[in-house]
Amino acid sequence: MGELFQARTVREARELLGGHIKTTCPVEQVQLLKALGRRLAQDLVAVDAVPGFDRSTMDGFAVRARDTFGATESLPSYLDVTGEVLMGRDAGTAGVVGVGQAWRIPTGGMLPPGADAVVMLEYTEELDDMTIGVTRPVAPGDYIVRTGEDIAPGAGVLPRGHILRPQDLGLLAAVGVDDVPVFMPARVGIISTGDELVETREQPGPGQVRDINSYALYGQAAAAGAQPCIYGIIRDDFKLLLDRLRQALAECDLVLLSGGSSVGARDVAARVLDTLGSPGVLFHGISIKPGKPTVGAVVDGKPVFGLPGHPVSAMVVFDLLVTPLLKYGFYLRDQLEFPVRARLTRNMRSAAGREDYLRVRLYQENGEVIADPVLGKSGLISTMVQADGLARIPAEKEGIEAGENIEVKLF
Amino acid sequence: MGELFQARTVREARELLGGHIKTTCPVEQVQLLKALGRRLAQDLVAVDAVPGFDRSTMDGFAVRARDTFGATESLPSYLDVTGEVLMGRDAGTAGVVGVGQAWRIPTGGMLPPGADAVVMLEYTEELDDMTIGVTRPVAPGDYIVRTGEDIAPGAGVLPRGHILRPQDLGLLAAVGVDDVPVFMPARVGIISTGDELVETREQPGPGQVRDINSYALYGQAAAAGAQPCIYGIIRDDFKLLLDRLRQALAECDLVLLSGGSSVGARDVAARVLDTLGSPGVLFHGISIKPGKPTVGAVVDGKPVFGLPGHPVSAMVVFDLLVTPLLKYGFYLRDQLEFPVRARLTRNMRSAAGREDYLRVRLYQENGEVIADPVLGKSGLISTMVQADGLARIPAEKEGIEAGENIEVKLF
Repeated sequence: MGELFQARTVREARELLGGHIKTTCPVEQVQLLKALGRRLAQDLVAVDAVPGFDRSTMDGFAVRARDTFGATESLPSYLDVTGEVLMGRDAGTAGVVGVGQAWRIPTGGMLPPGADAVVMLEYTEELDDMTIGVTRPVAPGDYIVRTGEDIAPGAGVLPRGHILRPQDLGLLAAVGVDDVPVFMPARVGIISTGDELVETREQPGPGQVRDINSYALYGQAAAAGAQPCIYGIIRDDFKLLLDRLRQALAECDLVLLSGGSSVGARDVAARVLDTLGSPGVLFHGISIKPGKPTVGAVVDGKPVFGLPGHPVSAMVVFDLLVTPLLKYGFYLRDQLEFPVRARLTRNMRSAAGREDYLRVRLYQENGEVIADPVLGKSGLISTMVQADGLARIPAEKEGIEAGENIEVKLF
Repeated sequence: MGELFQARTVREARELLGGHIKTTCPVEQVQLLKALGRRLAQDLVAVDAVPGFDRSTMDGFAVRARDTFGATESLPSYLDVTGEVLMGRDAGTAGVVGVGQAWRIPTGGMLPPGADAVVMLEYTEELDDMTIGVTRPVAPGDYIVRTGEDIAPGAGVLPRGHILRPQDLGLLAAVGVDDVPVFMPARVGIISTGDELVETREQPGPGQVRDINSYALYGQAAAAGAQPCIYGIIRDDFKLLLDRLRQALAECDLVLLSGGSSVGARDVAARVLDTLGSPGVLFHGISIKPGKPTVGAVVDGKPVFGLPGHPVSAMVVFDLLVTPLLKYGFYLRDQLEFPVRARLTRNMRSAAGREDYLRVRLYQENGEVIADPVLGKSGLISTMVQADGLARIPAEKEGIEAGENIEVKLF
């Protein structure tokens, strides 16, 4: 069955999946403080200007800039102090800064009418309570944040789909958005298959191992903002697997099968995936290492992945094909997926036409970032634990030599 | 008051704080699936070997390696198929792989006694049900994961203080740790000060602005794994601030004051911090931009920060001085804090002796990572929203020129 399919590149796999996935994430309103890490469900537009008034950025004096032109330390411009701006008060009702006049103003204070700049305290000398000398000229607009300079009224504040970071919470607070429309987290069903698997709390007998993938994938799904749900360990049996998969598909937005690296188990998984619905299996195998024996399917608009049984392989494929869907709802283009460039410590060979993913330890040496590969079989979860990131050897390269740069993403 | 203190470098500030902070985080047990992102409270040691038996990494035949020596496609080694390993079953009870014999074995199956290697299916030809020809030799250990090769019994699995990632959940599942001892999240009290501040849901009048910092800092604390708590907006009044700060200190492990960028407000905050307890204020000003007017204090072992009022400044200081404490409980040395090296798009000047932090947009161009500074005053939260990361100009440099590399950390 798998022989009918050619192995796909990561890009092709994404395009195939992207063309068939229909995501209709429901929306909920959450209180601003609970919105961190959530995905915005609509474009947000500012109603008011931020700040709502011209605002001083320094402690000093609000002045007419032209009254300071030519001022020097030896020949200060003398101004009459005729008022004071109080923090948080309306400075527009108590008069005007006239020609040759100055008002005291604190950092963050509202610029009074008539003034068009602020002179820093450091560049003034107080002659008496009523008179200052300005020792440096200012230009109109100096030391002021203009009305709407942070956020203009009517401006787009944050786009639909944006994942909210701490600064975004700050921005939404500034424009008065206290309830935020966000997408509900995608529900991810996780099924482990394999006659050899036992639960974490069980003691494995000879020939048995504890289920690693359910936990690692649960963690990856949660880290991507989704709501994972574990459907347990299923024996390599067509009927059992089909029933559990149908249940997971009914209850979730995306389903992961993992395990079944043996030919027999792979065949069962592939037959089940092809039985479920349309369009069914889209690809069978991706040209990466580790992670090749991956099955990608879409059933009634929902993605279903048959991930390899080896934990490292399953996690690499999750990272490449599942994480983007959970975080963004689709595959982004031109994303900076591997932002770190690090110097590789040893030669690593790869086959042309295949992307290789290396587990790497990262450290700093003389200001340079160094990537040291963690060697070991893809069945060893400990190699992922020892690593700080995942490095990529592109398909067009046959390897990367010691001392060359490699692209890395951090775990 | 501030004049008595010289501005500290980030490193000095960390050392001063680190020398006085006494952290005694309580510990709780959480179920493994809830442990993502939590900090491990003790060293964990493996009891059992993982895997608990020699395990095949391929579909094929379990053999004695020496029986395959010299095998080629034209002159295969012929072996009698005398058994089959079933997935998840004990292969140690049904006999031994004898000289000239082979057992069928699936990926993940238990190596039967007598065998010391696996021959991949691809390098065998089946002559009849009872006989195979091996067309390539294998060495002892080939295509096998040895008992304890992933995790040796008695080996340290994860160290105290480690922050649990998805792969770490997988590792703990593998060794049977279903309840994980983790530190309770640090409680962070957040107080905003300023006569100009109003709540998010209020409409600011002339001279008023909505409180941005409480929300941005709440987000940063939550992102660092802490449990933030907002203590509201306090007027610039000694008694009010002292009372609220005492309450926050009694209830939290770390307290943040933000706001009060005007000289008057700064003085109030500093006097309050010096009143609270011993040793009190440790530094007053750090030699960074933005973020200079930062007060660092420790009161009865708990850190208290007086952060600048400008949102960008407050967030930068939080990132440098608060995030490490919340994530790790102390300041790490030799950490890869700024892992991305990106080419700067324009000349950026800096003063020698001062670290400058730039907000930067990051993108990729011809395989290179490019950092484009987001210019704008530190009072503008929108500049943080437009940025993808924070770049650093070290204190010993007077700037970085267009085309040179700059160190960046991603938001």
